[in-house]
Amino acid sequence: MPTRPEIAYFGAGPASLPTAVLEEAAASLLNHLNTGLGIAEHSHRSALANDVLRDTTNRLKELLEVPEGYSVIFMQGGGTTQFSAVPYNLFSHFAKRVLTEENNDIEKTKARLQKAKAEYVLTGGWSSKACTEAKRLVGEEKVQVIANAKDVNGGKWGDIPAAESWNLVKEGEGESVYTYYCDNETVDGVEFTGVPQVPEGRYVVADMSSNILSRKVDVSKFALIYAGAQKNVGTAGLTILIIRDDILQTQCNDTELRSLGLPLPPIMLHYPTLTANNSLYNTLPIFEVYICGLVMKKLLETGGLGAMQASADRKASKIYALLDKYENLFKVVPKKAVRSRMNICFRIEGEGLEGKFVKGGEERGLLGLKGHRSVGGIRISNYNSITEEQVDKLTAYIEEFAKSATA
Amino acid sequence: MPTRPEIAYFGAGPASLPTAVLEEAAASLLNHLNTGLGIAEHSHRSALANDVLRDTTNRLKELLEVPEGYSVIFMQGGGTTQFSAVPYNLFSHFAKRVLTEENNDIEKTKARLQKAKAEYVLTGGWSSKACTEAKRLVGEEKVQVIANAKDVNGGKWGDIPAAESWNLVKEGEGESVYTYYCDNETVDGVEFTGVPQVPEGRYVVADMSSNILSRKVDVSKFALIYAGAQKNVGTAGLTILIIRDDILQTQCNDTELRSLGLPLPPIMLHYPTLTANNSLYNTLPIFEVYICGLVMKKLLETGGLGAMQASADRKASKIYALLDKYENLFKVVPKKAVRSRMNICFRIEGEGLEGKFVKGGEERGLLGLKGHRSVGGIRISNYNSITEEQVDKLTAYIEEFAKSATA
Repeated sequence: MPTRPEIAYFGAGPASLPTAVLEEAAASLLNHLNTGLGIAEHSHRSALANDVLRDTTNRLKELLEVPEGYSVIFMQGGGTTQFSAVPYNLFSHFAKRVLTEENNDIEKTKARLQKAKAEYVLTGGWSSKACTEAKRLVGEEKVQVIANAKDVNGGKWGDIPAAESWNLVKEGEGESVYTYYCDNETVDGVEFTGVPQVPEGRYVVADMSSNILSRKVDVSKFALIYAGAQKNVGTAGLTILIIRDDILQTQCNDTELRSLGLPLPPIMLHYPTLTANNSLYNTLPIFEVYICGLVMKKLLETGGLGAMQASADRKASKIYALLDKYENLFKVVPKKAVRSRMNICFRIEGEGLEGKFVKGGEERGLLGLKGHRSVGGIRISNYNSITEEQVDKLTAYIEEFAKSATA
Repeated sequence: MPTRPEIAYFGAGPASLPTAVLEEAAASLLNHLNTGLGIAEHSHRSALANDVLRDTTNRLKELLEVPEGYSVIFMQGGGTTQFSAVPYNLFSHFAKRVLTEENNDIEKTKARLQKAKAEYVLTGGWSSKACTEAKRLVGEEKVQVIANAKDVNGGKWGDIPAAESWNLVKEGEGESVYTYYCDNETVDGVEFTGVPQVPEGRYVVADMSSNILSRKVDVSKFALIYAGAQKNVGTAGLTILIIRDDILQTQCNDTELRSLGLPLPPIMLHYPTLTANNSLYNTLPIFEVYICGLVMKKLLETGGLGAMQASADRKASKIYALLDKYENLFKVVPKKAVRSRMNICFRIEGEGLEGKFVKGGEERGLLGLKGHRSVGGIRISNYNSITEEQVDKLTAYIEEFAKSATA
């Protein structure tokens, strides 16, 4: 195996992966378990592929302590595909529950559906896109923005409205189909500190694409958690879902959806079809699942999510402490209470200093520091694969830069 | 790099890839162009990723001699996702053309839409699934099965009704939205011999998932060609589309679709959104694109599609000749005129002989010979990466097997 030169990559995703994982993946790509065939060549229905699928599922369940009554789905299409899949499947589930309660009376169900709403919390670009897509597919009137961070932060992202302030659908006025939020927004660097407190019985859906496996999560609080793999778990091309089984078991059929005026999901976005086929309704990219499995194995061997959480906290705190130390130079974008541990976004005051910072980083092998193209600035992505040594190298550079800029 | 033991894999997909390609891909996974980062870690919006995307697109265009006026899209979700994407986008395009012709008169457009139909040719499991999905999404009444191979083959797959016999939508009775077929059916091993002759102006859509890049194709005859990458081009997780630009340019907006009673595509299946973003509306798995690019480069260096076609013909002819030589033992599934060059499907007469054949193959390093689980029998997949030497080894085994079985 060739070695790779020592650099540190702080890009927001696709993100860097542990070298040991890539070495194992590369070897397996060529010759998996000495079968003479690479992992990407084996049939997705072979016993070998099945082992990969089972092991990865089990590791994920172990890491997140997924309780009974939840299923894991592997899908293609990224988080953006889930922006559509969520309203398709969750509205269908809600409608089927109502249909059953109303003894299959379509008109009564329709009447209740008319006042039913998906609740969206907007905290950045990703939750906003998810909300826009839900409105497209089920209609604006069926989506309620229950909180918008821009409203409490002078028209800009960078804060998370407290759950107590959310304008939830009230009893008597209608019903909540699900409550959606994005646990970590990569572009402006805000992150929920934990599971928001919502009334019992809410179907909470969270996009954890950019912070999954970086801390413990009480899965039992959720109806659905999903995550694109390419930040904390693996490579682009795979999305991981943890879904409560009642959603899979209780779904309208196509005729019911049509009668109720709800949109039919394309078959590849129909969650029950995917679970009924063990995520193999079509050809699943097993190589990508394999990489995720290797990353999870490593996490389990190094202390699981408790250790990851402690490490992420330590790494992020070091960086934020330094940014705060030079607060006249570095302006952290989000408010202090909601600063993301995963994406540390800040501006550098002073003409041309941001470009200089990025360039200086590149010269030292510290790459991927540019902010998202839509907002500019600096962004340090501090995902699981970033080591404490890499952060130390980075903070040394930040300090050096700050001293020279403020000298 | 480790070497891999010499085996030959005739599985139907995921399929084997050239060892040289895998070696380059594995090295790049670890350290792409000595950047210190692997190809799967680099941002999909980096200059490096852009190079991969551009090179792969250009190689595809060169190989297939794609004329002006066509775009290439890379998508996730496999061929099955296209079963949905095709009706969404093609109906939207048709409706927009009609709307324009009818000066945006919704009622007149609706009236014409009511008699408009997508035309499906059923020749096996894949085209049937595509047809079923179109019926789900746009309604049974908007889909016309114009030919069903089972009708001409005693209720079984294994033939392709001649284009002259197709029950096309007739002028005066309605309009054709598009004409859909699957160029090669992997399960029963039937393949079109060329582009079917349909009346001028038809929007021909072809699923070439299992035979793309195995022969020359006159792209100008098509509105859309798509192919999952995992058989002749690369690994699972990527789908390649070649689409005529008028379909991208002329599409209903969401309001129009709703007014006309047509389904809205989820955003990731909306072709114009994908092309407007250079296939980067979300995170594209660049590693998979890179592998396809390497395979295409190799094809260009070894004579392009003319050479591939000659080689595929030679390899398939050798195998079929031998099966015909022992025709009392081997029963080729499809009719002679439509035998697939890619998937050679046959039964072996005699109790337990199929199991014996597969087992004997495995002992000789000839793997992946089992037929599709839904039909049984033997299937030899003869994709681009299968070498003539591998086929010679296989035919030697078939002959040996036949002699011993008929002795």
